[in-house]
Amino acid sequence: MSIESKLSQFREISEKISAYKLALTTLNWDSSTIAPKKGAAYRNKMAALLAGELFSIETSPEFIVCIDELSTEALDEITASEIRQIKKGLDKARYIPKEVYVEFAQLTRDAENVWEKARDEQDYESFKPYLKKLIEMTKKVVSYRKDDRPVYDQLIDDFETGITLADYDVFFEKLKKDIVPLLHKVIDKNIPQPTWLKRIVPIQQQRQVVEILMEYLNYDKSSCYIGESAHPFSSHFSVHDNRVTVRYQEELFTSSIFALIHEVGHATYNGQVDEAYQGRMIEDSMSYGMHESQSRLYENMLGRSREFWSSIYPKVQSVVDALKDVSLDEFILGVNHVELSLVRIEADELTYPLHIMVRYEIEQGLFNGTLDVEGLDQVWSDKYQEYLGIRPPHNGLGILQDIHWSGGAFGYFPTYALGSAYSAQWMAAMRKEIDVDRCLENNDFRSVNEWLRENVHRHGGVYEPNQLLLSVTGEHFNPQYYIDYLKDKYSRLFDVGE
Amino acid sequence: MSIESKLSQFREISEKISAYKLALTTLNWDSSTIAPKKGAAYRNKMAALLAGELFSIETSPEFIVCIDELSTEALDEITASEIRQIKKGLDKARYIPKEVYVEFAQLTRDAENVWEKARDEQDYESFKPYLKKLIEMTKKVVSYRKDDRPVYDQLIDDFETGITLADYDVFFEKLKKDIVPLLHKVIDKNIPQPTWLKRIVPIQQQRQVVEILMEYLNYDKSSCYIGESAHPFSSHFSVHDNRVTVRYQEELFTSSIFALIHEVGHATYNGQVDEAYQGRMIEDSMSYGMHESQSRLYENMLGRSREFWSSIYPKVQSVVDALKDVSLDEFILGVNHVELSLVRIEADELTYPLHIMVRYEIEQGLFNGTLDVEGLDQVWSDKYQEYLGIRPPHNGLGILQDIHWSGGAFGYFPTYALGSAYSAQWMAAMRKEIDVDRCLENNDFRSVNEWLRENVHRHGGVYEPNQLLLSVTGEHFNPQYYIDYLKDKYSRLFDVGE
Repeated sequence: MSIESKLSQFREISEKISAYKLALTTLNWDSSTIAPKKGAAYRNKMAALLAGELFSIETSPEFIVCIDELSTEALDEITASEIRQIKKGLDKARYIPKEVYVEFAQLTRDAENVWEKARDEQDYESFKPYLKKLIEMTKKVVSYRKDDRPVYDQLIDDFETGITLADYDVFFEKLKKDIVPLLHKVIDKNIPQPTWLKRIVPIQQQRQVVEILMEYLNYDKSSCYIGESAHPFSSHFSVHDNRVTVRYQEELFTSSIFALIHEVGHATYNGQVDEAYQGRMIEDSMSYGMHESQSRLYENMLGRSREFWSSIYPKVQSVVDALKDVSLDEFILGVNHVELSLVRIEADELTYPLHIMVRYEIEQGLFNGTLDVEGLDQVWSDKYQEYLGIRPPHNGLGILQDIHWSGGAFGYFPTYALGSAYSAQWMAAMRKEIDVDRCLENNDFRSVNEWLRENVHRHGGVYEPNQLLLSVTGEHFNPQYYIDYLKDKYSRLFDVGE
Repeated sequence: MSIESKLSQFREISEKISAYKLALTTLNWDSSTIAPKKGAAYRNKMAALLAGELFSIETSPEFIVCIDELSTEALDEITASEIRQIKKGLDKARYIPKEVYVEFAQLTRDAENVWEKARDEQDYESFKPYLKKLIEMTKKVVSYRKDDRPVYDQLIDDFETGITLADYDVFFEKLKKDIVPLLHKVIDKNIPQPTWLKRIVPIQQQRQVVEILMEYLNYDKSSCYIGESAHPFSSHFSVHDNRVTVRYQEELFTSSIFALIHEVGHATYNGQVDEAYQGRMIEDSMSYGMHESQSRLYENMLGRSREFWSSIYPKVQSVVDALKDVSLDEFILGVNHVELSLVRIEADELTYPLHIMVRYEIEQGLFNGTLDVEGLDQVWSDKYQEYLGIRPPHNGLGILQDIHWSGGAFGYFPTYALGSAYSAQWMAAMRKEIDVDRCLENNDFRSVNEWLRENVHRHGGVYEPNQLLLSVTGEHFNPQYYIDYLKDKYSRLFDVGE
């Protein structure tokens, strides 16, 4: 078969895969937003059936041969990247015996049920044997790959290609050395949470704020949509169709708003990918950490800055009664308020990475043999005590709070911290080229989006994180930007000096 | 292969087909309601690709052999009906050469474009050659079937199994004889359209009316959903997931509301099908006419009656400012106001069937050779003059108003009139068993739904229309019920005697 016919076969199957993915995305979006509850069982069954059809196509001998053959050919940069990424996935999966795969899938289904009950009953002991089994099975599954690296190194690479354990070690060491002391300095100032944060804001007023924000962020309604759901998320349909959801909570106004800004960061990333990649796997194969870097950039670096709000705050005040007597400075202090917290998903910007650090150290220990599931809940609590200065009253607010491990997702957590760290590096690079603060103050968010489009977004998933960082910022991933950003921001905000 | 394995193969493929259909329904719903416009081109392309996948499964040699073999087996009533219906579809399609099929598909695509332009430019001449070609191609496509009946008889049967040209002839003769004179009597009374019908009703108030109606109609939110779209429609996802859309128009309040009641009639039908049929083709293979009978029953026979509104009208008045000074009697007269009209989709209940009669007579003439496309616009206008007493000022409001013929759908229109006629027969049967008026007045719509569920809805598409009518009402389709209903209703409403 000529290379042209191989390529055309590849494109034909790829396009079919994209069609199934769009259908599944649409079913998913529908389920999480408006679909009537009573139809869920049937809908889920049919979606699973379609997912099975997709799986059959992705793992068909025809497609595998096609990928294997193309991987030895000289291809254009984009196609080569695509083939490389698909082949990487195939190489991880192809040697796993089917019965091992099925056993692992069954284990995660069981473990998720057990975890949910264990969390509700705050009972680590009932989850413990499953956690042990999950680690063993993960090791087993990874052992079939033709890859000599230690298991956790491979897992880390699964979730963030090219980032190594050594990178993370450097990163978390810096956090421990510089951010833990900074956090304690801030906490020692005993700044009370502003009471206005708890004021009730009617949903109708929140909707108006969303309109103001959408206009400010240049979120184009003809290629985007805002829905509502129990948990905010963003969903990528195609380059010109990206959606986010908001969860309006009367008593948690700012939290609803910042979650929305976060999701719009994700949606804008997907919406600014080069149109030429539409329908190709490269369109949305960017890494977890890279995706999170754009949402965090929006939510924190830009969204929680004084400059961001300066031009729209009067408008916001005019629609939100609860902010009438809150000055812009008070607002900024409030939305950046720091508090010791036990629960990762409720953590503020400063404490968040420390929550991740705890999980990283534990995962690393579990896979290199220095930690065991026995007594792991105590290890968890000790680490919270040490880094965050607070101890979970029970395991439901401790080791059992996250679903990830029950699904076998080890190595995923660190990408959450990476996202923020990348975003500081992007921010520093952007500041060299445009006056970000001036853009924000001048209601010129378009220039910010344009910089992001040109340097980050348009590439979709063509490049690995380190490749993209190097070509744009001149360096590989460098966590120092993030450390400096946090130190600078919080020292100034809360006047704690350095 | 044993009959058990054939059946299990049949069920497996059927379930897969259902999964694709659900995905396509979801994509369609999404497109017509909230999907961002700029994503349409890509989304449509992907949906077409998936539809192609579905087509491949439905026409796979494996499935065809399975159906052919099962069609000779003794099966339970439900499965037999299912196999019979699928085989009927196969028998219509299997002998058509692929190139003829492709040519016909291309022709309809072209013709729809030409029709749209012709309608906008009120230019029948440019559409005429396409109409001629569409009729020729339809005859050609039908000629491949192993069926000796005249072409139009077959087309009629395609859209409403078991209803014959003779049935329609009797039906439309009665309409001509009894309803045309009745209409003219009503029109001669020169009753002006009540001015309150044109009052502006803010969308927020209309939403509240929808809430009142949903409660009254027992439309259960956990298995239904109301969206918004440019044209109201209902969409069937599964037994426990049926949706309708409403188009809120400030200046056309009652029209928005009755369109909604119409769609809820469709949705309730699908929502009361026996759960055991879920995911089987029988679940929603009811005929067009039968489906329309339920929406018209809701919209007209029930929805435009005084009894329907009597218990909720005070509540409606309390939320709609424009109705504050409109008494219940005035409201009922207004929503049943009769006016000579040129456009089918805007017609009132009394004139509607006459619009259909015009189309039926023309279709019949085109296929039996008594009419030709030449000068057909004049034939159209003459018939409007004769039956409706009004002549289109141009062809855009005349022969070019409907999309159907450009898509090759000849024989479809008559089912619209059939729907109303069936519904009168259902209504008469229901009145023998429950006191419908009392139920409506007592806010007991549940009993009406329950009668419909037990006698009509639960059967899904198992029975042909005549079978179902016979078993429930004791007669085959009998248009006299409809004639009597219209005569009785409109004589009394407008006091025109008989």
